[in-house]
Amino acid sequence: MTRTDYDDFLYRIRELHDLHQIDGWLQWDQQVTMPAGGSGDRAAQMATLSGLIHERLTDPRLGELLDRLADAPGLDDAQAANVRETRRDRDRAVRVPPALVQAFARAKALAFDVWQAARPADDFRSFAPHLEELVRMAREMAAHIGYAHEPYDALLDEFEPGMSAAAVQAVFQPLGTELRGILDGLEGAPEPRTDFLTRTYDPARQQTFCRALIADLGYDLERGRLDESAHPFTIGNGDDVRITVRYNPRFLPSALFAAIHEAGHALYEQGLDPAHRRTPMGNAVSLGVHESQSRLWENMIGRSPEFWAHYFPRLQALFPDELADVSAAEFVRAVNVVRPSLVRVEADEVTYALHILVRFDIERALVNGAVGPDGLPELWRERMRHYLGIAPADDRDGVLQDIHWAIGSFGYFPTYALGNLYAAQLREAMLREIPDLVAQVGRGLFQKPLEWLRERVHRPGRLHPAPELIRRATGAPPDASHFIRYIRTKYGALYNQAL
Amino acid sequence: MTRTDYDDFLYRIRELHDLHQIDGWLQWDQQVTMPAGGSGDRAAQMATLSGLIHERLTDPRLGELLDRLADAPGLDDAQAANVRETRRDRDRAVRVPPALVQAFARAKALAFDVWQAARPADDFRSFAPHLEELVRMAREMAAHIGYAHEPYDALLDEFEPGMSAAAVQAVFQPLGTELRGILDGLEGAPEPRTDFLTRTYDPARQQTFCRALIADLGYDLERGRLDESAHPFTIGNGDDVRITVRYNPRFLPSALFAAIHEAGHALYEQGLDPAHRRTPMGNAVSLGVHESQSRLWENMIGRSPEFWAHYFPRLQALFPDELADVSAAEFVRAVNVVRPSLVRVEADEVTYALHILVRFDIERALVNGAVGPDGLPELWRERMRHYLGIAPADDRDGVLQDIHWAIGSFGYFPTYALGNLYAAQLREAMLREIPDLVAQVGRGLFQKPLEWLRERVHRPGRLHPAPELIRRATGAPPDASHFIRYIRTKYGALYNQAL
Repeated sequence: MTRTDYDDFLYRIRELHDLHQIDGWLQWDQQVTMPAGGSGDRAAQMATLSGLIHERLTDPRLGELLDRLADAPGLDDAQAANVRETRRDRDRAVRVPPALVQAFARAKALAFDVWQAARPADDFRSFAPHLEELVRMAREMAAHIGYAHEPYDALLDEFEPGMSAAAVQAVFQPLGTELRGILDGLEGAPEPRTDFLTRTYDPARQQTFCRALIADLGYDLERGRLDESAHPFTIGNGDDVRITVRYNPRFLPSALFAAIHEAGHALYEQGLDPAHRRTPMGNAVSLGVHESQSRLWENMIGRSPEFWAHYFPRLQALFPDELADVSAAEFVRAVNVVRPSLVRVEADEVTYALHILVRFDIERALVNGAVGPDGLPELWRERMRHYLGIAPADDRDGVLQDIHWAIGSFGYFPTYALGNLYAAQLREAMLREIPDLVAQVGRGLFQKPLEWLRERVHRPGRLHPAPELIRRATGAPPDASHFIRYIRTKYGALYNQAL
Repeated sequence: MTRTDYDDFLYRIRELHDLHQIDGWLQWDQQVTMPAGGSGDRAAQMATLSGLIHERLTDPRLGELLDRLADAPGLDDAQAANVRETRRDRDRAVRVPPALVQAFARAKALAFDVWQAARPADDFRSFAPHLEELVRMAREMAAHIGYAHEPYDALLDEFEPGMSAAAVQAVFQPLGTELRGILDGLEGAPEPRTDFLTRTYDPARQQTFCRALIADLGYDLERGRLDESAHPFTIGNGDDVRITVRYNPRFLPSALFAAIHEAGHALYEQGLDPAHRRTPMGNAVSLGVHESQSRLWENMIGRSPEFWAHYFPRLQALFPDELADVSAAEFVRAVNVVRPSLVRVEADEVTYALHILVRFDIERALVNGAVGPDGLPELWRERMRHYLGIAPADDRDGVLQDIHWAIGSFGYFPTYALGNLYAAQLREAMLREIPDLVAQVGRGLFQKPLEWLRERVHRPGRLHPAPELIRRATGAPPDASHFIRYIRTKYGALYNQAL
């Protein structure tokens, strides 16, 4: 390697990073501040940006640089990771013919429109041919990208590099069995009261609470913002990482836990190593790891009894009338209610992963060609009954439920459940190494867990693929046992049942 | 011309337009919503974007296309204008060596930093060498760009295409003489009361009023937003055009007239022909014409007695205590006070143009090499005394006053005064063709003037250079007589003096 090659490479990946960030800001603006009239021009601006990103990524001169840098001596680990990760992104971009990329983009836009109308109308029939077309194209893309065992691997790899369908299956298999057993164990336990969650909670005071809370967690509002949007999200990297929530005046947990969830994502982005800004090493390693950060903060810390031992009096002070007749223990039980339901995004910690298993089974079968769209509504009901013991009467809350397939995202779902598993595994390691963790959280102090996550998860960036990152952080490769243990212990105590 | 050539050209200019718009949104975000921490990464993102715009504009294939399209038969007027305007932008970009562009960018950044410290410290000496360097580079750029008569022409042409220093001089010369005569005529006239302008005005109610007002003018809030920023500005094009103001609780006119001013800019951008979106024909023709729109609405309509005949009772209803002892006539006189002052941005309609004359004389002499930076403080005082009869004791409110030279903008100032002249000329034509214009404004109805401006000024886009646009809209080439007449009539009546 000559000094010049890596510098030239660095110039190119920084430019690519900037373009991705700009794309993020256009999305943020679109969802938070853009006036309605702007949508047409915004679509054009984002298409132009995508075209530029694709052009830069597939530039043959970048390919030549990557070839020369691949075996170059003298690269340090971080530099080698930047080369490896850029090669990975580039290979995916180069392998899929531009005509297919464009056709897929058009088909996705069309399918999304049809889905938006089909869902409220409970009309799977109109959506089915579009889904079929998207699956066909996704299979074609998988064939171009290449895979070791099955087409699904090539798609999963986009979101969770280093994972395969078989590896996911090996983790999900015991997860499903165990969670169903736990659900059985909770059957017949007395239902906690939840009546007070749906009283009227002033949005402005909700916002005050959320803002103070995420600042306590370590989210730096000088390097971020808290705004409102239809669906909560986090966008940005490094020194500008913004989160959004939505304040539902008639359901207190919505904004509260969305704020902690998004702050978890944001802490990851704010915690990446400043020395690696504008390169792959300064970016999150995978969606699964990203989700592990949001879920660890939201569920494992933010829904714990110790957390509310500290925060419930503060919440009560803000809403004295609304929470007058509620104890901290009641509040904790209410925000941890386990109840099999039809809708994934409303699911609790125990049943959430089972929803993902339903989707993983189905999309894997779809992409690998084992099932066609026609059989989906029935397959959906069968898998729901299998994992959750209930099934939707219609397709609105069944196979039409999620946006993901309608926008051509196959292979995304597993990252949600992997996030839970990674989170529980990280939590266990953290408990070993921070003996007073529970006490710290109980006093509203989060520096120790945050610093632990910074060191083990955030600052490494993309040095290792996700499974290796987890192994190094926790001492063991990812598996479901930690999550199962966590669920058993937590819900056994909350429901006073032996699980 | 083949069909393909124009289509290929269209693809390229649309991409360029998108990149410019994206740059605008990054600026908007930076000034309205970006957290403090984001500035470093944002600078990188904007530099990347500038680089891309420069690359696309100077792409030799665009040059070849422009060559082929230059004499191509079959182009309609709008297509020919797109080719001509793109050629113009490209020629400017191609002629200046990239090394000079980069050196200028660095010198500007440095000079701006020094100016920011030098102004409050009244320390022209530290800024002088930076100004000297910027002037030297600006002269060098002018030499690369080329000009007919003097280096200043090449710089002016960036902001007001079709104008030359001599043409500006021909218009400004009588303007200076006449305005000084008018100032003399106002001397000794009784001062109107202005005490009530500096009472305390609740910012939230100011905002309510501004929002309703700009909607009345025809500004479409579904295709725009009203926000706050340190300095008011307008950004955007077509279906997303945003304005900002700043609510000063202790000076009512600030936000009121900034809102009307920015709405004037925004009405222009919203009124461009939708058929020409994403091409030069769908963009404003010059800064002078842009300023004519803001000033026509702000000063000629928004500070007129008929305007406040309608709006003062509404303003009074919002601020009943603050404006209890004020009449509509007193309010109009207060917001039209003429008083020579040292600071341009606080100047009234009569003296504002004189401030511009000061700057035009000086920057023209600087750029053409007739004076060096060392002589500037004294030249500033001499020109101020000449035009306004007063001079600053220090350089803070003298030669260090404006940001423009510190960011390397030479040739920008004349567009402010040209905007006033164009505005008055348009107003006169409008009064001829809309006989009930004054009555309409007096009822808060602005459709007729807006439609007139849409047709004569907005929808033509860049079909003709600014002077020709004004000639076609008003029947005469631009000159100062209309503005002088307007000032004489308006201020003669307000001050009850024969002017």
